[in-house]
Amino acid sequence: MEINRNFLNLEDSYLFSMIGNKIRDYSNAFPDKKIYRLGIGDVSRPLVPVVVKAMEKAVLEMGNISTFRGYGEEQGYRFLRDAISSYYSKKGLAIKFEEIFISDGAKSDLGNILDIFSSGNTVLIPNPVYPVYVDTNIMGGRRIKYINGNTDNAFLPLPDRNIKADIIYLCSPNNPSGAVYNKEELKLWVNYALENDAVILFDSAYECFIRDERLPASIYQIEGAEECAIEFCSFSKTAGFTGTRCGYTIIPNDLVRSETSLNKLWLRRQTTKFNGVSYIVQRGAEAVFTEEGQTQIKSDIDYYLQNAEIIAGTLDKIGLWYTGGKNAPYIWLKCPSKMSSWEFFDYLLENAGIVGTPGKGFGECGEGFFRFSAFGNREELIEAMEKLISLEKFS
Amino acid sequence: MEINRNFLNLEDSYLFSMIGNKIRDYSNAFPDKKIYRLGIGDVSRPLVPVVVKAMEKAVLEMGNISTFRGYGEEQGYRFLRDAISSYYSKKGLAIKFEEIFISDGAKSDLGNILDIFSSGNTVLIPNPVYPVYVDTNIMGGRRIKYINGNTDNAFLPLPDRNIKADIIYLCSPNNPSGAVYNKEELKLWVNYALENDAVILFDSAYECFIRDERLPASIYQIEGAEECAIEFCSFSKTAGFTGTRCGYTIIPNDLVRSETSLNKLWLRRQTTKFNGVSYIVQRGAEAVFTEEGQTQIKSDIDYYLQNAEIIAGTLDKIGLWYTGGKNAPYIWLKCPSKMSSWEFFDYLLENAGIVGTPGKGFGECGEGFFRFSAFGNREELIEAMEKLISLEKFS
Repeated sequence: MEINRNFLNLEDSYLFSMIGNKIRDYSNAFPDKKIYRLGIGDVSRPLVPVVVKAMEKAVLEMGNISTFRGYGEEQGYRFLRDAISSYYSKKGLAIKFEEIFISDGAKSDLGNILDIFSSGNTVLIPNPVYPVYVDTNIMGGRRIKYINGNTDNAFLPLPDRNIKADIIYLCSPNNPSGAVYNKEELKLWVNYALENDAVILFDSAYECFIRDERLPASIYQIEGAEECAIEFCSFSKTAGFTGTRCGYTIIPNDLVRSETSLNKLWLRRQTTKFNGVSYIVQRGAEAVFTEEGQTQIKSDIDYYLQNAEIIAGTLDKIGLWYTGGKNAPYIWLKCPSKMSSWEFFDYLLENAGIVGTPGKGFGECGEGFFRFSAFGNREELIEAMEKLISLEKFS
Repeated sequence: MEINRNFLNLEDSYLFSMIGNKIRDYSNAFPDKKIYRLGIGDVSRPLVPVVVKAMEKAVLEMGNISTFRGYGEEQGYRFLRDAISSYYSKKGLAIKFEEIFISDGAKSDLGNILDIFSSGNTVLIPNPVYPVYVDTNIMGGRRIKYINGNTDNAFLPLPDRNIKADIIYLCSPNNPSGAVYNKEELKLWVNYALENDAVILFDSAYECFIRDERLPASIYQIEGAEECAIEFCSFSKTAGFTGTRCGYTIIPNDLVRSETSLNKLWLRRQTTKFNGVSYIVQRGAEAVFTEEGQTQIKSDIDYYLQNAEIIAGTLDKIGLWYTGGKNAPYIWLKCPSKMSSWEFFDYLLENAGIVGTPGKGFGECGEGFFRFSAFGNREELIEAMEKLISLEKFS
């Protein structure tokens, strides 16, 4: 018996445990001081009423013999896949129901999708990055190359023809940087993928934060993407489903590699290793796409976007370099006075009780940078920003 | 870009689509004839009231800002893991909460667990078998050996010291055969695993159908199993969660291979590729373990077990060889008159409108056998059995 030794190559991430420890130590030392949590990647607004109502109804159906539902199709109920298809129609995109796979979240699909690819493929990953892209590929024993984000490219790295890769991860609006690719930039990536017979794994978890209509809210708004890209979407940030769990993945019928439909490969993977998402949750997700649902979730997203605007406005006043904060729930700033990202973390916590996320936690290129998230409470955010602006470093 | 070519070695399963086609053709030809579905592996009883109530409450909590829950721990909420730990205490087993991982179902975990094992391992799979064991290993490129079930071993194959393997699948009570290993038989498997440094993947999805207290309802009732076995459990058949989706997997702290804790490897896999089960569903699952919940689900399991008894009683009268039907929801019979399993399928459908599952669909050793399930409606079952007993073949 041999374990998968690739796991031994994983580095333990101490990011969130170290943040937790530092907060605990600070609270113990200064029990009366308030803590402002601007590091969290989780939402704070509850589920919207129309979703709650739909799930209440579904729960009752499950308790009644005449409306009870057992196994559903692994790919998801047709009612939800049709609702998603209509959502794409409104973006001017024709996505067929059979190109849509419902799952328990984008994180699961982003990891599990690798099952359908050879472990001999080379992977291209932006840095800084959502750690899941890296770790899932280390587990699979794939060779990883990085493309670097920095202030010169505003954390929107573009393809380099000298670097060859088979699988490319893109996330726009980006976590952690909040930067958003425009159509011309994404077109360069699509062209690169088509020329290299590569596949783009496009993490679209934050698409609903895009308010500038010129920016692409789906990679399929780029010509040719249907032949080279898989799109991963989530209800987590769109509709507050972080604890409710639902997402969806789009694999176009036109996406073919090694003369094989990737849609069919994924269908086979999912029907073999997955048994679908709870009927109750799928009914909740369906309600997100009703007119009422769209209005209700827009109000929460507005709330987060206004939070982001408040953070960005404060950084403008202070005069710190940053990206994100528009069309995205994250603000990515350059630490002042050449501080390292952990030094800045300590400085903010000790002098203002503000908690953010050190950029180093997202990879080497995150060193010297820092992430604020806009998912918190408004009143606390305003207080935190007043504290921030009055800090010695910025006065 | 190269796909995972192991997928091309998968055989398409036409079992359920072929059954569906045959039923459709029959219904079109004889629109007035009633169809009795005894093939289905899905439950028919709705969720019990205490589960419905718990999920209704959880849905409302998710809609209120003061009780809303975002991301939970990937391994599951402590309240559910503690409830499961108590459930095992009642079986006399000490399973710690950190040895329990909550998931969206046993099928997912049975597939995903292979991530932590080398693809160089050899796998031992009983035949006939739940097809997921085979297909997930073909996807991973592992070498598969089979151990054969037959009337001589009553479809409870025992280890053969001449066959070496690293990963062993056992399912008891068994799908498809309904046969249940006793403690002495399971002890032989545990000894074999320990001697060969192998790991047993023990599918315990039907444990709650065991009413004979001498039979093991967990592999950890066998001495030494904590050093060689992972147990996969599900609320699907226990509490009618086939469409609600929840299961759990137990990896003891004492299970170590290549000097590595398999519990820690799986924790790393799950925190990287999974984001936990819906809070709402976990509250529903927790309710199953309350005293009220246990009483309510017992009533449904009794219903299915009585169905099984009715089928078994009919087969006794007819004089057909069968196994299962006691301590299990499946009955596995030998087709009469040396018919093949598909011949018997056609005979039953055409002459009595009864649908079962041809044994061939579970592997070569299933040829000549046939599965009935006990998950259907009582009145229809009684009618079907009257039709069965009056068939020419059995008169």
